[in-house]
Amino acid sequence: MAADIAEQPAGYARLLESDQAGAIATVAAAVARHQPRHVVFTARGTSDHAALYAAYLTEIRLGLPAGLASPSAITLFGARPDLRHALVIGVSQSGGSPDLAEVLQVARAQRALTLAVTNNPDSALAQAAEFHVDIAAGHERAVAATKTYTAELLALLMLIEGIRCGDGRLPAAERAALDTLPGLADEVLADRAATDLAPRYRFAAQLVTTGRGYAYPTARETALKLMETSYLPALAFSGADLLHGPLAMADPDVPVLAVVGSGPGGAAMREVLRRLGERRADVLTIGAGGTGIVLPRVDERYAPMLDILPAQRLALALALARGEDPDTPRGLAKVTATR
Amino acid sequence: MAADIAEQPAGYARLLESDQAGAIATVAAAVARHQPRHVVFTARGTSDHAALYAAYLTEIRLGLPAGLASPSAITLFGARPDLRHALVIGVSQSGGSPDLAEVLQVARAQRALTLAVTNNPDSALAQAAEFHVDIAAGHERAVAATKTYTAELLALLMLIEGIRCGDGRLPAAERAALDTLPGLADEVLADRAATDLAPRYRFAAQLVTTGRGYAYPTARETALKLMETSYLPALAFSGADLLHGPLAMADPDVPVLAVVGSGPGGAAMREVLRRLGERRADVLTIGAGGTGIVLPRVDERYAPMLDILPAQRLALALALARGEDPDTPRGLAKVTATR
Repeated sequence: MAADIAEQPAGYARLLESDQAGAIATVAAAVARHQPRHVVFTARGTSDHAALYAAYLTEIRLGLPAGLASPSAITLFGARPDLRHALVIGVSQSGGSPDLAEVLQVARAQRALTLAVTNNPDSALAQAAEFHVDIAAGHERAVAATKTYTAELLALLMLIEGIRCGDGRLPAAERAALDTLPGLADEVLADRAATDLAPRYRFAAQLVTTGRGYAYPTARETALKLMETSYLPALAFSGADLLHGPLAMADPDVPVLAVVGSGPGGAAMREVLRRLGERRADVLTIGAGGTGIVLPRVDERYAPMLDILPAQRLALALALARGEDPDTPRGLAKVTATR
Repeated sequence: MAADIAEQPAGYARLLESDQAGAIATVAAAVARHQPRHVVFTARGTSDHAALYAAYLTEIRLGLPAGLASPSAITLFGARPDLRHALVIGVSQSGGSPDLAEVLQVARAQRALTLAVTNNPDSALAQAAEFHVDIAAGHERAVAATKTYTAELLALLMLIEGIRCGDGRLPAAERAALDTLPGLADEVLADRAATDLAPRYRFAAQLVTTGRGYAYPTARETALKLMETSYLPALAFSGADLLHGPLAMADPDVPVLAVVGSGPGGAAMREVLRRLGERRADVLTIGAGGTGIVLPRVDERYAPMLDILPAQRLALALALARGEDPDTPRGLAKVTATR
């Protein structure tokens, strides 16, 4: 897991190389020509969080309605939605989940434009879809996904910005911003703050994560990493949903990790932090907009590719501090076959 | 909270009366005439779970793609999605959340057909939308929503089945099935099993809830009730997502509430129950397809209006057993103003 985490800056650089970037641009241009009217994502686990990020991008950057489909409506209950004007995107590192491949097959039969985003071009999901984006993350050794998650984020960002431009190519300013990511990720991983904080949570009985907008997928993925590797019950809420009920649960014994960016999402988190303060919650912020683990200041659109790095390091260090083996969490397999 | 819970069978009966049913049928017929191509739901907290149920119904019963929108894309990041062919439905008991009203206003300006489902026809949300469905649940006394949740479920079911028929009227078989709900709900509430089980969870440090398909919103709502009233960290997962990581967390000290119906969703839960058994988790099933709290056998489409009742009773009894006041949970207000 440590090696997978360390490879992420190189993974960003690889996706930004001309071959990979060109392949994504070609898919983006083809999708743009079809002019989909709305986008449906289907994914599970960690990839579901990458899909959630892409759904925000789709709404904000493309001005298209986006939603996350429940595979079970199709796979268990036989739903056959009319998808004539939809782009359906399946996201999965292995591409091996039979339920997602079935959703893409049904979507294609229902006349959707279909696209798979995976780390395996030979996978069932990649084969089921009309288009494929290879996240090119290389073999992931640990069961808990780290480098495939961030590669999914960047590949989806490049895809969506490419669709936005119509011809798949990124404007120079966008390209320049993306080109800073490998270096910024290196810088973030050079900071040991997250690892050093692990002992503080050694005896935590549970944990809450929260964020808004682009930071909400980071909060969700942070919670999942902590559950997978440290077996720590971690509850993720959008900052707004937290105020709608679960806030009652917050007290000084429930540590909170709040992902706070430097843009509109981070600004909206101030009220959440204030309310958590009233309940005397123990809050650690991650991101450019807080005072805890402070990250480089970037547009919130890019922050998910940096903010998750210290959270992964924290999950790893906490698992080790608790005497667990983060590489092979109990009860899990790398490819999960659900229907 | 006890009084609100007890009023639910009467709430079902009231919605099924000719005046309310006729009003919903009129809205359903008007929506059907517009022939929306996809449906976007927007909601927070408990109402988000009713919206999730309605999203399953939309995909399975109407054959239309459905998704839950993140209000922040519109309210914080200025997204202006093209909603020409969309039906946008805001669900909120109070109708007082400013962010949801803003989403409906923007959706209407973006040429969506807009509909509010609330317990208050004079609310900002109801005023913002072109159409309004009144869930007619009466004044809810407790902060934790119970009777407004189930009224939202039934109103959304009647609406969607009405749209399915085109003229808003329900077929005789559907109507007959709905007419059994008040009696079945009475029967479920007469059973004290859930209340009697509360002491068993008195010292639980956390809890996991799970379900698939139509039962997944019930699992989510059960978790939220436990967090709101008993301050018990409760993690909700779709059965499929549970196998994708959080399963590692399950052990004999983490109690699991599994919502298991008697149809395809319940059948798909068998594998989840088997894997939880391997991890020696302490599992209590709720629903017609299990052996724990056994409920009347109905089509899984109707089960959410029954399965949540013992879960509400459990949350209430557990809050009392833990010395908390379920009527006024700490840190919460009835109307939550988020942006």
